[in-house]
Formats: sequence, structure tokens, C-alpha cells
Amino acid sequence: MANLRDVARQAGVSAATVSRWLNGSLNLPEQTRTAIQDAIQALNYRPNPYARSLSRGRTDTLCMVVPDIKVPFFAALAAAVENASFNREVGLQLSVTLNRPGREMRYLESVAARHVDGVIFVTNHAEVAPLAQQIRKARRVVVMDEDIPGAVAPRLFCDNHQGGRLAGAHLTRHGHRQIAAIGVGDDMLSGTRRFEGFRQAVLEAFPDAEIQRESGVYTIEDGRRMTQALLNRGRPFTALFAMSDEMVTGALQVFAERGIRVPQDVSVVGFDDILPLDMFSTPITAVRQPVEALGQKAVELLLDTDWDDPAALAVEHLLPVTLIERSSVAFVSTKNQATDQQENPT
Amino acid sequence: MANLRDVARQAGVSAATVSRWLNGSLNLPEQTRTAIQDAIQALNYRPNPYARSLSRGRTDTLCMVVPDIKVPFFAALAAAVENASFNREVGLQLSVTLNRPGREMRYLESVAARHVDGVIFVTNHAEVAPLAQQIRKARRVVVMDEDIPGAVAPRLFCDNHQGGRLAGAHLTRHGHRQIAAIGVGDDMLSGTRRFEGFRQAVLEAFPDAEIQRESGVYTIEDGRRMTQALLNRGRPFTALFAMSDEMVTGALQVFAERGIRVPQDVSVVGFDDILPLDMFSTPITAVRQPVEALGQKAVELLLDTDWDDPAALAVEHLLPVTLIERSSVAFVSTKNQATDQQENPT
Repeated sequence: MANLRDVARQAGVSAATVSRWLNGSLNLPEQTRTAIQDAIQALNYRPNPYARSLSRGRTDTLCMVVPDIKVPFFAALAAAVENASFNREVGLQLSVTLNRPGREMRYLESVAARHVDGVIFVTNHAEVAPLAQQIRKARRVVVMDEDIPGAVAPRLFCDNHQGGRLAGAHLTRHGHRQIAAIGVGDDMLSGTRRFEGFRQAVLEAFPDAEIQRESGVYTIEDGRRMTQALLNRGRPFTALFAMSDEMVTGALQVFAERGIRVPQDVSVVGFDDILPLDMFSTPITAVRQPVEALGQKAVELLLDTDWDDPAALAVEHLLPVTLIERSSVAFVSTKNQATDQQENPT
Repeated sequence: MANLRDVARQAGVSAATVSRWLNGSLNLPEQTRTAIQDAIQALNYRPNPYARSLSRGRTDTLCMVVPDIKVPFFAALAAAVENASFNREVGLQLSVTLNRPGREMRYLESVAARHVDGVIFVTNHAEVAPLAQQIRKARRVVVMDEDIPGAVAPRLFCDNHQGGRLAGAHLTRHGHRQIAAIGVGDDMLSGTRRFEGFRQAVLEAFPDAEIQRESGVYTIEDGRRMTQALLNRGRPFTALFAMSDEMVTGALQVFAERGIRVPQDVSVVGFDDILPLDMFSTPITAVRQPVEALGQKAVELLLDTDWDDPAALAVEHLLPVTLIERSSVAFVSTKNQATDQQENPT
């Protein structure tokens, strides 16, 4: 069977040129591209990563496990990991679990079975007993985004606590002291840390602040449900901290349905900032996740960790977040309380 | 090593219960879950899909190849394929190519090498000479979303022509006869068909209609570039057909920057409808892709096609699209022409 050198010779270019063009790291004039393509077809050449993998004892393929690729944050994270993998010249295989334990364990098996060199693992459910054990066995696993308690693996998160603080401080600087927060519960790391950072920042500014909290899952539906629960409870709040793009979307839908205006009646701060929040009817202020940096760091950790070093497996890496200010936070007045509105929907 | 039956016996449930819980098709009370988890840990049980694959001569894993998972349409399509795969009890491995020819060929190799049972293949670049040949070799490949000329494989597309017609008819019903269209060029199937359907519908309503066309790639940046080019050209248009969510986003940004109001100064119809267009400052009317149906049909084709039947490999399946009406299309008046505004940005 023809190899890369045969193709290069026939096309009249160097083997490096063919290789770099095939893996996409080189742009070529059309004439050269055509010459290479013709040579590939004439010689019936097929790139053979498996041969390379056998010769090096490595597959040069990573696996990334995500709960749901339809969630824009996970899609953006996967794209960032893909990009970083490409720069390090390894392939990426994406696997979606929808949080099913059988699927999660199966993908971890891939490492043990040497189908891939390692796994970047993202889960967002709380019930994880056999998972931690499986990760210990798989060894080359980076735990990302949410924690898996008991797993022996390098961990990589955005600085959730700082994100919560940024949101809380931004709202109190605008005078808000009756604030509601919707997010996930304390059984998940992002839930605990985002809320705790937020709570601290609010209470540092206003020790008598009234904070309400609703917990659920990171979906539009649950964003709706929690916002409705807050409004129906009738305890006034002038601002809402919604801890994901999906929850922001759900909250805004409910506010619109009840004639509650953002930011005149209620201020809103979101989290993630992957959806085009700048295009929304009120452009939404949000804590932005460092998606590109997370992707790059995850691949770095997977490829560069010394897996025989216990200290490396106990490290937690936090990447800083930023607050993107838009138009959804107003200074508080005595009038603007979301619950004032619910009796008089427009 | 312990097998599924050992786990079931120790947990006091049936093997079917353990199996169905592991693959996520069964919800259990917490007590039962804990019993199964304890048994898994105590017996050191690891699900072994590879053993099953060896015994059946199949991997029970499909591969889906997409150009860019960060694009919401591809992410939604991948989630739909994942969902359909799960219902058919096969695993899914997602691979991202960023349109790099080397990567595309590598993933097609996976089928030949029997690492997966088949490939659902999505590409969106036009230069495809060696690809078609590779697909012929790989055999179990479904070509989806964009065509790969010369490939011998079942094809699955949304009805792009109908989508273009719906957009054109909707705009002419509102009196528009000076219309601009931004999309991809005639070297891609979606470009040809969407524009052709649109052009036909417009000219059927108004034989003297003025249609302008700009072509590029499906990105926000190119949506911006093409919209700017149209405005700078100075030929008036009262409506814009932007043929992807990303192009809509780019166009709306440019309109906002130049003080051009939607729909007062220019009407807009989009395509895809995966982004939350209903949340945008003007909720955007758009042709919606049948994403769930596409995902289900793709998996059906991959699993149920008789690969020895030449007729099955020559079939093109089209799934219908729908127009979702929101607030971005207004009746035309002599005053609202986008290019009137560009000298006086607000």
C-alpha cells in the first residue's frame, strides 16, 4: 500500500507538506492541493493512524465525556478541547452520557482498554459512588467542570466562588439588598461555590440583605420553574442571579409573560455567557466562563501530568472568570420589586 | 471477574434491572440504586461492551462526524443523533473535523478498520475529491446535511429548496420586492437549493423583483461582512433572507450598529432556528430545521440500510422544514429601505 512519501513524490512536494495539509495545519494553492488529491486517488493512499499508534504504543486519541452536547456551554467546551487537541496533534473522540452511569463507566473503560490515551471527564449528576472507583482504575482522567468526590485525578474548574462574588458585588454596588438566586444545589460543586461566593459578597456589602435561593438543574425548564416559585412565594426581590445561560433564558421568559421588565422591575445577572446574551431584548450582564482556557488546560493536564506523582493527582486548578457588563442591572429604587408586578401583568 | 448476573444476585435484583439501570433506561428507588452500586463496588464489576462486541461481530457503536461542534445547529444535530442512538441501544462517538481532510479520512477509516459499525458524515466544505472515494470504501456511511458529490451512500437533507420557498413567499406576502439574500455559494447543496427555492418563490409573486445575493460561509463574521457589503453597495432592499443562525446574528449586529431597525427599516427571515431567536430584541422569524427528525432518520438509515442493495445507496431523503413566524417581518412601505438609513446612523 502506498505511503505518505509515495504520495509526496507523485505530487512533487515534500512528505511534510502532504502531512501538514492532511492534518489541516497548512494552506496550499489550489494547484498544489489538486496535485496532492490526484496522487492520493491514483495511489489509493489511506492515512493510517492505527499503524502509527501501534508503533508508538499510544493511540494519540483523547476522549472527552460530556453530559449533553446540546447545552451550549458543553458544546463550546468541547470545541475548545478539540482545538487544544489539534494543536497538540492528538485526535479527540467526544462521548455523550446524558448522565447515564452505564455510559460513563463504559467510556472510562476505553482508557483501561487502551482505545484512547486518556479521558477528560465532565459529569453533572451527584450520584457517583462507582464512578470515583472507576476513575481511580482508569488513571489517565482529568475531572472537569463539576467535582467527582473521591476520584483520584487532577481537577479543573472555573473559579465558581469568584464568579458568585462578582455577581453579588455587582448587584450590591447597584444598591440591591433583596436578591434571589437560582442555581443547582449543594450536592454539586458549582452550586455550592457560586452561591457561597455570591452570599459572601452580598452580606459583606449589606449584612442585613435578604437572600432567597432556589435549587434545581441547569435547564430552561427549571429556570422557569424556580423563577415562578420565587414570584409565587411573594417575598420581594429587586435582583436575580441566575447561574447558567439556560436558567437566565427560563427566568426571562417568565418575567416577559408576567410583564416584569428587565432591568426596570428586576435586575438580572447570568452565568456562562455562551449564548448570544448581547442580542437579547435586554442585553444580559453575566459572569463569563473561560471556555478557551479551560479547554487548553484540560488537554495540557491530560498530556503533561506525571501519572505516577500522587501530588499531581491531588491538584485542583481554578481558572479566573470575568463579569461582562451589559444592560440588565439597574440601580435599585424602592419601586422596582419583581413581586410588585405579579398582580398586574401587562 | 464478576459479571452482570453476579452483581444482580448480590443486589437482590434481576440481571435485566441492573442492565437497564446501567444503560439509563430504568429509574430506580434510591435503596435499589444503592444496593446495585454497592454490589458493583464490592465485586469490582466493570461493564464490558468489548466482550459483547467480539461475540456479536459488531461494535454497537456509531460514529458521527461533524465539522464544528460549537455551531449550535451541529450541536443540536449531534444531540438528536445521540438520542436516536440511545433508543436503538447503540453507542455514539462524536468526531469533529473542522473540515480538515486528514481528519475526515481518518474517521472514515474507523469503519473500514471495524472500530465502529458505521459513520454519519457531515462536512461543509466543497473540496471533496478523495472523500467520495473513501466513503465508497468505508461503505456504511450516511451523508447528511450537505452533499458529497460522487459519494455512493444514502443521503439525508432537510428540504432546503422548500425552506427557501417558505422564506421567499413569506416576504413577498408582506409586499417585499427588493430583497437581499446572504448564504453559502453554489458549490454547496444548501447554498444552491435555499437560494433557488427563495428566488423562485419571489419571482412567482413579483416577476420584476430585485434580488441581491452575497455568498460566504456560515459564520457570524461572514454574516457581518456580507451585510456590510450589501449596505455599502447602496442598492436598496427592504428585506433580508439570512440563511443560518450565525448569519442572522451577524446581520443583526451590523443593522444595530448602523441604526437600522428590524422590522421597521428592514425585515429579516433566518434559517436553522436553533439559537433562542425568540429572545432576541426583535424575535426573529426563521425557517426551522427538523433537527430531531434528522437525527432519528440518520440513525435509522445507518442501522437499517441494506448495504448490498445499490438502490438503497442512491436514495436521497428530504425532511420537511417549517416557517416559525415571530416579529421580524413587517409589511413593506415605500419608506423602509435599509440603505436609506446608512447615512444617518443613530
